Amino acid sequence: MTEVTRELARWVVGSKFDAIPASVRQSGVRSMLNWMGCAVGGSRHETIDIAIRALKPFSGPAQASILGRSEKFDVLNAALINGMASHVFDFDDTHLKTIIHPAGPVASAIVAMAEHRPVSGAELLHAFILGVEVECRIGNSVYPAHYDIGWHITGTAGVFGAAAAIGKMLGLDEQRMIWALGIAGTQSSGFREMFGTMCKSFHPGAAARNGIAAALLAEQGFTSSNRVIEAPRGFAHVMSVSRNFDEITRDLGKVWETALNSYKPFACGIVIHPSIDGCIQLRNEHGVKAEDIARIDLRVDPLVLELTGKRTPQTGLEGKFSVYHSCAAAIIHGAAGEKEYSDAVVRDARIIALRDKVNAVAQDDIAEDEAYLTVTLNDGRVLNKHVEHAIGSLERPMDDKALVAKFDDLARDVLPVAKADALRELCWKLESLKDGGDIARAAVG
Amino acid sequence: MTEVTRELARWVVGSKFDAIPASVRQSGVRSMLNWMGCAVGGSRHETIDIAIRALKPFSGPAQASILGRSEKFDVLNAALINGMASHVFDFDDTHLKTIIHPAGPVASAIVAMAEHRPVSGAELLHAFILGVEVECRIGNSVYPAHYDIGWHITGTAGVFGAAAAIGKMLGLDEQRMIWALGIAGTQSSGFREMFGTMCKSFHPGAAARNGIAAALLAEQGFTSSNRVIEAPRGFAHVMSVSRNFDEITRDLGKVWETALNSYKPFACGIVIHPSIDGCIQLRNEHGVKAEDIARIDLRVDPLVLELTGKRTPQTGLEGKFSVYHSCAAAIIHGAAGEKEYSDAVVRDARIIALRDKVNAVAQDDIAEDEAYLTVTLNDGRVLNKHVEHAIGSLERPMDDKALVAKFDDLARDVLPVAKADALRELCWKLESLKDGGDIARAAVG
Repeated sequence: MTEVTRELARWVVGSKFDAIPASVRQSGVRSMLNWMGCAVGGSRHETIDIAIRALKPFSGPAQASILGRSEKFDVLNAALINGMASHVFDFDDTHLKTIIHPAGPVASAIVAMAEHRPVSGAELLHAFILGVEVECRIGNSVYPAHYDIGWHITGTAGVFGAAAAIGKMLGLDEQRMIWALGIAGTQSSGFREMFGTMCKSFHPGAAARNGIAAALLAEQGFTSSNRVIEAPRGFAHVMSVSRNFDEITRDLGKVWETALNSYKPFACGIVIHPSIDGCIQLRNEHGVKAEDIARIDLRVDPLVLELTGKRTPQTGLEGKFSVYHSCAAAIIHGAAGEKEYSDAVVRDARIIALRDKVNAVAQDDIAEDEAYLTVTLNDGRVLNKHVEHAIGSLERPMDDKALVAKFDDLARDVLPVAKADALRELCWKLESLKDGGDIARAAVG
Repeated sequence: MTEVTRELARWVVGSKFDAIPASVRQSGVRSMLNWMGCAVGGSRHETIDIAIRALKPFSGPAQASILGRSEKFDVLNAALINGMASHVFDFDDTHLKTIIHPAGPVASAIVAMAEHRPVSGAELLHAFILGVEVECRIGNSVYPAHYDIGWHITGTAGVFGAAAAIGKMLGLDEQRMIWALGIAGTQSSGFREMFGTMCKSFHPGAAARNGIAAALLAEQGFTSSNRVIEAPRGFAHVMSVSRNFDEITRDLGKVWETALNSYKPFACGIVIHPSIDGCIQLRNEHGVKAEDIARIDLRVDPLVLELTGKRTPQTGLEGKFSVYHSCAAAIIHGAAGEKEYSDAVVRDARIIALRDKVNAVAQDDIAEDEAYLTVTLNDGRVLNKHVEHAIGSLERPMDDKALVAKFDDLARDVLPVAKADALRELCWKLESLKDGGDIARAAVG
């Protein structure tokens, strides 16, 4: 059998930043910006308050910033907390092929480490791109069987990505990079059963922390198997019922998974996105107002009703699982950011009145990123919209302007506007920063 | 479906120390003593040096002792290191039904925590017994299918035990105990692929650390699934192909897994133990000397040759996988402790000469804890020995005297004799100690 782990490790060790196409580097920067917005935006969530309260008495030296807040923790605990914050809104990036959220485990690890062991912005970006490559390729090799069993792939594959990225920053040689992947893999964990609880966001955080530990141990000579991915008792056999190692090694350095990363324009399950997109388009094109609407009819992929069919959500979190609420918020507010999923908005009488006028029908031949909308107005007019590919899909990616709007919405909720703006500009300039850790320090609340 | 997780959590929360039979409490004390000897004995191993070097710069306040050494780490990192040290010789306890090494994850967690949040010796022992119960029952529910897939069950089940034990020490209520088990379970990890590398001992250490984090987070209200064990996407379905939840809930508080714990008299794979046992018996009964021996013939379980058939081991570690070396050492030194697996002993010319006279034949109808030995002397005499159940098996458990000899051998190798003896006596008195953390402080090197 091919030495998959060794081949992957060797590629990471040998990778040169200059050899990465500019477009891929720019994708990396966009991912980092999106991650930073999510991490800062999520930093005041109750989940983070609780984790900080629980772990603070045990944290090490003040080496790394908790983004969006004032605490400083040791590198490992900071990565754990920042990784949780970046995923707590479920608003972070998505590698659509595997539904891995790639940045959480990788960026949280390297940004925390960069404050302790300084690297340039280019080195940070390089480590990020490699980490994403490693986690997504390992994810590709076992998806969907691995996910179907019940593994939360962001945690299980993410830990490899974090270890590879930190290993690159530390300059590990091939043997030590192999060990880092091994120590990471043997910590691979996280059940989908945890979705809907605070543990979901714990997974990318833990992956970041465990990946760092793996690379640090390997750096000092801590040994592991040389074949963690491909061995009969290693990751791909133990944690999946099928696997394709070719997905890991084929076209390394030619096809880049970072370039396939996507960003959510809306702070909810991705299956509702085409419906929200359509509502916002109709609202903006026709000046549709809630009061004028008699009914809204959706034809959608069956998954929409299965996953987000909540008719009468009571809380913001439940609103994220309601296509009805989401469409009402989209018409009334023209957006479906984190704010539109607050308890207050979900309980707003105007929203509820419109929500009750939304009807959705599942149709097998409609794709996940597709929706048909019909809005019937009180005056009898009928408005139609076919969303072929929702905004945020690979076919209609969010442009930089949309990414900035999302970042601003998230970051300005936590940081003063000037600070949030400065942070955003620093992220855009990541590749040219002398000290990559500057982005962490600039994100302190 | 029964609420397995809730039932188990409720039982742990409601358990009273007084209701635990004295014999079970004594089994707990014996397990703790054996664990302490292993942890102190293993504390100077290279694996531990490396882990300390890697993690020290990130460790928190000096809250808990590294047993056998002078460093103090935060509770979580101390538990990680002590858990590794206790397993690094592969000399710790064995729950034979599941081959879980129960004390590593549980004792390492609670002893570190006891230095930070003081509890009495009885409370510590209570937490230990409950933690072992939880991990072994969860192990019972999925063994052997779970192990056969490739999971290192000491890590995967151990994290539940550590969380339950710490949860008991922290006085968690039922809901929080359920969450603690959930947060623990979603960290369950560790591949058998790592056997033979430093990662093997990392597993119980990580289980201890992760179990502590789980209980601390739950204490502050960090939520998880209420059904981590039994849910379709929870532990027993995701990480095993078959399961029996009855093993978890049946006879709770009536049958105690702690009472089924066993201890290794010899510092090597358990399949060689009957052969070593027989050699030592023949040596002591007949005053057999290496020089008088023409040949040694063994008839053993086929696993012996499969796992420990190394004819010419070159290092101490290889010696552990050589039934030939082990028998030679047993005849010459009358023991097979950690010392008999040093590089020097393995390379000793007298040992090698005798090792080459050992012949082993596999026989299907011989049990794993059984062996037939025939020693032919140069003068023509033939000595036979049938070991029906090796010393250390449930049928012939190590008595207290043997446990003490093992402890002394391990602890005196690291601590001054007086200190090692005082530590041993403190462990025996655990149940009556005012402050359970005293055993950790007494173990400082």
